[in-house]
Amino acid sequence: MAVSKCSRLSGASVKHLLDSVDCVLFDCDGVIWRGDQAIPGAAQVIHLLKENGKKVFFVTNNSTKTRRMYAEKMSTLGFDVKEHEVFGTAYCCAMYLKTVCKLEGKVYLVGSDAMKQELEAVGIQQTGVGPDLIAGKQADWANVPLDPVVKAVVVGFDQHFSYMKLNRALQYLTQQDCLFVGTNRDTRLPLEGGKAVPGTGCLLQAVETAAQRRAQTVGKPNHYMFDCVASQFGVDPERCLMVGDRLDTDIMLGSNCSLKTLLTLTGVSTLADAEAHQKSGCAERQGMVPDYYVESIADLLPALQG
Amino acid sequence: MAVSKCSRLSGASVKHLLDSVDCVLFDCDGVIWRGDQAIPGAAQVIHLLKENGKKVFFVTNNSTKTRRMYAEKMSTLGFDVKEHEVFGTAYCCAMYLKTVCKLEGKVYLVGSDAMKQELEAVGIQQTGVGPDLIAGKQADWANVPLDPVVKAVVVGFDQHFSYMKLNRALQYLTQQDCLFVGTNRDTRLPLEGGKAVPGTGCLLQAVETAAQRRAQTVGKPNHYMFDCVASQFGVDPERCLMVGDRLDTDIMLGSNCSLKTLLTLTGVSTLADAEAHQKSGCAERQGMVPDYYVESIADLLPALQG
Repeated sequence: MAVSKCSRLSGASVKHLLDSVDCVLFDCDGVIWRGDQAIPGAAQVIHLLKENGKKVFFVTNNSTKTRRMYAEKMSTLGFDVKEHEVFGTAYCCAMYLKTVCKLEGKVYLVGSDAMKQELEAVGIQQTGVGPDLIAGKQADWANVPLDPVVKAVVVGFDQHFSYMKLNRALQYLTQQDCLFVGTNRDTRLPLEGGKAVPGTGCLLQAVETAAQRRAQTVGKPNHYMFDCVASQFGVDPERCLMVGDRLDTDIMLGSNCSLKTLLTLTGVSTLADAEAHQKSGCAERQGMVPDYYVESIADLLPALQG
Repeated sequence: MAVSKCSRLSGASVKHLLDSVDCVLFDCDGVIWRGDQAIPGAAQVIHLLKENGKKVFFVTNNSTKTRRMYAEKMSTLGFDVKEHEVFGTAYCCAMYLKTVCKLEGKVYLVGSDAMKQELEAVGIQQTGVGPDLIAGKQADWANVPLDPVVKAVVVGFDQHFSYMKLNRALQYLTQQDCLFVGTNRDTRLPLEGGKAVPGTGCLLQAVETAAQRRAQTVGKPNHYMFDCVASQFGVDPERCLMVGDRLDTDIMLGSNCSLKTLLTLTGVSTLADAEAHQKSGCAERQGMVPDYYVESIADLLPALQG
């Protein structure tokens, strides 16, 4: 536990922190890249962490890419990253259904083609991916055909989200023993220039409201994301650092799993946000206060080069 | 104020209640009809109330029909109802924008063709009705073309609800001075046989989550629905009875506006639901306890015929 939380990491304290960990988890967007641009110095930081014997993993709530797609994007941006080091919610969701839920049956998927691929990679079939629109003038919504072997509704990011999908999810979820899993609750995907588009949280909330049920989510801040890494690579939480740009997902995940936490200011959350949580006196909000912060993960470079 | 709430209305107490009011508001689905079937005796009740000099109005959260469409459906089912006696949320929403908000500009409408017609009837133009899908493989969602004269986002029931509509609503709502209005928050539309489909509340919640703003709703239980009737017909709340089948919308509207309230058991809510609210000791839930209940509004017939 840090003596004083939310302190700026610089000089000797960087080396001290890095010496205290064997494993570093990075969020992606806003941390190692922004959109399609690598954060300057980020590739070198990751390379040097590995050279220094650290395990490095990437944990992202984005469900629109498979591990392979992530590894390819990373390679294009100059990062030395292997597929098995990437934990996106498309992959983690498939693993959760397979290993935790031990799902026998199909998934009704409100989600992307990447999610379909990750599900199929662990042997789970899906139905639902792609457009699903109202047929004709007024469909008999309550009696839409359902696949009898569907045993789970899974909601991730879906650019084809529609009233019909919402309705079909509701019809499945009113059946007994139908699991309900969401990738994450991020309400917005922030873009360059202060713009944003609706996130998976909006879609999930619509389905939850219709179904009058709450989904289990696998993404940050839920601990499953870390469990998934730890179960495969034997990570000791005490000697693991979570680096992220969002207090409510990245830093909260770290707090939930007793990891050390580092906020980088190249993304969504600001230092003022972190300080507001710290000063709030609210116990729940303390989980969103990072142990340390840096302007950019490039601030780790001098200690790694030294 | 009733001495003892939630009492069964029968015998002499029916006449006593009807003598104490000049105006009766009815919800429609579950009260005077179910789906496409009139509740037996309902048409005669309404006819006799009018013969006895009562003003009768219909207040419904359903936003998929214009006043005219309602009057036509009612006529088909044997009810003697005039267009101006029907207050649906398509009409009330248009009136709210016109008279309360004094909207100057266009509406971005997530809603039905009926809503478009009611808006146009009061001189408000809209954009958005009908399908709006993702074009191409990956749209530049944050930069979708916006209509510069849109000054309000309105969300009602929309069978064409899609990710693109959710996104477009978000883009409008991040603009300064853009109003945000919803027809109602009903989470489900109940159908015969215990089935249900997603209601407007699901769509509204998705937009609210994306926009990080709360919409003003015009439908029940918001008092605007009653204000709209009262402003046109000079109704005294003390001498007005609200008849409905849903505690959270119909009976709550009555409580919010100090009307007398009557639950009819031909629809969604049960007597056990009402009693649970009464026994809860929770102040907010007392607003969902009706003054009286009947098995069906046909129970009013003997007093009206006598």
